[in-house]
Amino acid sequence: MTAGLLSIGTELTRGELVNTNAAWLGEELTGLGFDVVEHVTVDDELERIVTALHRFAETHRVVIVTGGLGPTSDDLTTEAAARAAGVALRRDDSVVEGIREKFKLFGRVMPESNAKQGDFPEGAEILLNPVGTAPGFAMTLGQARFFFVPGVPREMKHIFGESIVPAIGALAEPRTHQVHLRTFGMTESGVAEALRGLEKTHEGLTLGYRAHFPEIEVKVHVRAGSVAEAERRSLAIAEEARTRRGDAVVGGRDEAFADVVARAVRAAGKTLAVAE
Amino acid sequence: MTAGLLSIGTELTRGELVNTNAAWLGEELTGLGFDVVEHVTVDDELERIVTALHRFAETHRVVIVTGGLGPTSDDLTTEAAARAAGVALRRDDSVVEGIREKFKLFGRVMPESNAKQGDFPEGAEILLNPVGTAPGFAMTLGQARFFFVPGVPREMKHIFGESIVPAIGALAEPRTHQVHLRTFGMTESGVAEALRGLEKTHEGLTLGYRAHFPEIEVKVHVRAGSVAEAERRSLAIAEEARTRRGDAVVGGRDEAFADVVARAVRAAGKTLAVAE
Repeated sequence: MTAGLLSIGTELTRGELVNTNAAWLGEELTGLGFDVVEHVTVDDELERIVTALHRFAETHRVVIVTGGLGPTSDDLTTEAAARAAGVALRRDDSVVEGIREKFKLFGRVMPESNAKQGDFPEGAEILLNPVGTAPGFAMTLGQARFFFVPGVPREMKHIFGESIVPAIGALAEPRTHQVHLRTFGMTESGVAEALRGLEKTHEGLTLGYRAHFPEIEVKVHVRAGSVAEAERRSLAIAEEARTRRGDAVVGGRDEAFADVVARAVRAAGKTLAVAE
Repeated sequence: MTAGLLSIGTELTRGELVNTNAAWLGEELTGLGFDVVEHVTVDDELERIVTALHRFAETHRVVIVTGGLGPTSDDLTTEAAARAAGVALRRDDSVVEGIREKFKLFGRVMPESNAKQGDFPEGAEILLNPVGTAPGFAMTLGQARFFFVPGVPREMKHIFGESIVPAIGALAEPRTHQVHLRTFGMTESGVAEALRGLEKTHEGLTLGYRAHFPEIEVKVHVRAGSVAEAERRSLAIAEEARTRRGDAVVGGRDEAFADVVARAVRAAGKTLAVAE
C-alpha cells in the first residue's frame, strides 16, 4: 500500500521555500503504516499539476496534495483536480458564507476573489479548515484516494489530524517494524561489509544506513505478516547484526553516544577522563 | 528549457530528513536562468529510480540527481542509471585507487565495498569529488543531460559549483527577471483583486503571491526575449502594480517593513511613537 505526496508551488520548485510539509507528512504516514515511496513537487502550471495527478492516480493508493488552494491567480490545484477527474467545479455557498464570516470577525470585507475558495470538483468531499480560510477536499482518482490541503503548515497539520487520519486509518497496513542501531568507530562501508548478505537471508528485511559523524546509524526495517511478527523478527535480526559487528556497536536509537561510552567504561570497570 | 531535480533516499520519503538539497539546487538553477518545474524524491527502490529517470529523460533538458552513490546496499543510483541507459557498469580503477588513498590518509584500510564507488555506467563522464569519497558522473538520457551527485550537501554543492555550472551554463536561457513587491494592510486576496487581469494584458508575466504575516509579497516574474527586456518590462509592470494598489504598497524585496514605515512617516512630515 504505497502513498505519495504532491506539493504544488513555484516558490518550492524555485527553492524560495524548503519543503518541510513533505518531510512532516512522510513521517506521519510512515508512522501510520504506509509505504511513502514518492514525493513530487511541481510549479504552479495547470498542465503539469494535472499530469502529476493522473500519474499518482495510477501509482499509489493514498495521495496527499498540499498547496495551491488560495484565492490568487497562481492557485490552480482545485481546477487541476476537477480537470484530472473530468468533472466541473461547483461552488459551495455555505463555505463561501463561512469565509465571509471569518473576514467579518476581523472587521474586514471578504474580497470577491476569496469566493473561489468555495469551489470544489463535483463529488468531492469537503475537509473543514477551522484554522484558515481555504477548506481542503478529498476525492478518488484512479485507484487512489486523494486529499487536498492548504500549504500553510498549521492548516495542513490540522486537517491531516482531524480529517485525513480518520479517513485513511483503515487503508494503512501496519505490518512493519524498524530497529535503529548505532555504531561508532567504523566507516559506513565497514558496517555494510559486516552486514553483507543479511538482507538476502531474511525475507522482508531492508537495511538503511545513515552517517552522522562520528556514528553510522543502521535501520533494520522488517515487513512481515503483522506488526508483532515484524517487531519480533527485526529485534532478532538487530541482535544478529550486533553480534556481527562486535565491539563497534554502541547502542539503540535513543541512547546518546556519551551514555553508551559511559556504560561501556563502567562495564569494563574503568574510568574516563576528558581534556580539551 | 526546463530543469528537474531527482532526490533518492528512503530517509527522505519517510521524512527522517528534510530535503534541503532540492531547495538549494532549485534556487541555484533558477538563478542561472533555468525553469525549475519539478522536484521528485523516490525511495531506495531500483525500479522506481529507473522509472523516474526514464520519465525525466523525456520531460526536462537538465536533471540533477542527488543521493544513492554511497557504498552500502541501499545505494542504487549508479545501477539505476546504467539500467535506464541500457549500458553496463564499468569500474574505473584510478577512482578506486583514489578512494583507497583517501582512506590511507586517515590511517584506515578501504573496505572492499567502497570499490563500488568506482563503478560508472559505460560512457558516463566522471565528476571529481575532492571533498568526499564518491565522485559524481554525468550522462545523456533521452533529451536531458543528467548530473549524478552525492546527497551529502557539502559534496553536492562542491561538485555543482566546480563541474555542473560550467557544463550547463551554455544550456541556460537567462531571459527572465523578477521584481519583488511587498504590501502591508491588505489581504492576499485583496492584493490579487487589485492586480486582476494584469497577467492577461502582459505577455510572459507570471504573478506569484506569498503571505508572510503581516505582509503579502508579490513576485512579478517576466519571461521575455532577453534579460534586459525582461528586466525593463518587469519594472514597468511592477510600477503599474504599485499604482493599482496605491497606499498599500510598501516597498521592494530588501526593505524591512520598519524602514518603509519610517520612510512613509518622514515623507508625510510626521513622527511615530511605539508603545508595547
